[in-house]
Amino acid sequence: MTYAVAFYLESGLVFAADSRTNAGVDDVSTYRKLTVFDNPGERLMTLLASGNLAVTQAITEVLRQGIKSKNKKKKNGALNLMNAPDMFTAAQVVGEAVRQVYQHDHEALREHNEEFRIGLIFGGQIKGGEPPRLFFIYSAGNFIEASQDSPYFQIGENKYGKPIIDRTITHQSTMVQAAKACLLSFDSTMRSNISVGLPIDLLCYRKDTFKRGLTMRVDEKDDYFQSVRGYWGDALRFAFEEMPNPDWKI
Amino acid sequence: MTYAVAFYLESGLVFAADSRTNAGVDDVSTYRKLTVFDNPGERLMTLLASGNLAVTQAITEVLRQGIKSKNKKKKNGALNLMNAPDMFTAAQVVGEAVRQVYQHDHEALREHNEEFRIGLIFGGQIKGGEPPRLFFIYSAGNFIEASQDSPYFQIGENKYGKPIIDRTITHQSTMVQAAKACLLSFDSTMRSNISVGLPIDLLCYRKDTFKRGLTMRVDEKDDYFQSVRGYWGDALRFAFEEMPNPDWKI
Repeated sequence: MTYAVAFYLESGLVFAADSRTNAGVDDVSTYRKLTVFDNPGERLMTLLASGNLAVTQAITEVLRQGIKSKNKKKKNGALNLMNAPDMFTAAQVVGEAVRQVYQHDHEALREHNEEFRIGLIFGGQIKGGEPPRLFFIYSAGNFIEASQDSPYFQIGENKYGKPIIDRTITHQSTMVQAAKACLLSFDSTMRSNISVGLPIDLLCYRKDTFKRGLTMRVDEKDDYFQSVRGYWGDALRFAFEEMPNPDWKI
Repeated sequence: MTYAVAFYLESGLVFAADSRTNAGVDDVSTYRKLTVFDNPGERLMTLLASGNLAVTQAITEVLRQGIKSKNKKKKNGALNLMNAPDMFTAAQVVGEAVRQVYQHDHEALREHNEEFRIGLIFGGQIKGGEPPRLFFIYSAGNFIEASQDSPYFQIGENKYGKPIIDRTITHQSTMVQAAKACLLSFDSTMRSNISVGLPIDLLCYRKDTFKRGLTMRVDEKDDYFQSVRGYWGDALRFAFEEMPNPDWKI
């Protein structure tokens, strides 16, 4: 399972993904699900992926190959993540990569009763006047965009970690607030679903910088994450104990 | 969708269920999903049901018919919820009702691409020396029992409301604490899934009373529930704002 979340903020974008994959509980590994495509100073894009790992790795590979072959002037290979003029076009490039892998693999997957079901979050900024943009890309390669009203996307095991985000984060939140909410959201998820696990890959992108901001891996040795987990558990229990009792006769 | 939860506490049992059913977002109704079977002073049992409403209503009906026909001495109808000698046997009676409805309906359901998939929580106490017991009954009619280590069961849309319970409730919690955690858990769930809705049916059973304790319906006009929602949102935001910042350069 995967849990990943990205925030669309006034000040930029924040991406986070866990790194546990499992093919059954007896086959658990660590894989990076956060991939950066960047040309520092000119563009930065980040892709978060959930679903069948073979499929999502193939999609990332198609995107990388597309960039490598940019000078070969293939008829249908002209557009790639490094020359797309804007983020909408870049999201279309990712959508095309999804469709290419679908064409290649879906029949074989069906033979083995595997669904072609993935979720991708893709966002970033390209020099040229547009603000950062954030997209949720479906298995069909089409996509929706985050907005001020809906300033975040989640993929994978999204439910346990959603309430805390809904209560704390808006488009106007700071990047530090979003990073903190991220960690709490992961904490809630990991407590309830052992197939979501550390380390967490975190990337913060500050608007109009066109390069990576804070890029880090949070693991079980991270002091801040440990302190957050303790703090939050205590704070919730305290708030719960302080909550007024009903005047019901129980 | 349904959300229902029940707690297995040292001091008794607490049951709660929402009452929204929907067959598509354009067909939403209110149905009671909490059913009491009792003989005050001698036994009290409560059933919470999620899944296809036609199936769960049929199961309840089979259980009621079984009680009505108790004096007819049918060969296979001898055991029912009112004469079962203990809670394990009573849970078996419920399991048999599930299997009876399955036999009657599953082929027709399959014809219409509907799965026979339900979840039942069943608990109570019968005079005779045993403490209250709580069971989770599967579509197959078999069941598991709550324990001190796993002191609650949820059915239906369980994920949004699970983290708050995990952090606040143990087998040693009081019934008031469990009722409060119930309301918070429903609040988190209803904020994220509109197919779970008010009113909430709540029933508290205090050990060795063999009759209903607090039995109430919490609707949008309930002052306490409204104050809880406001209090909890404020408390979480306050705790979040007070949470120490990381020393990361973002």
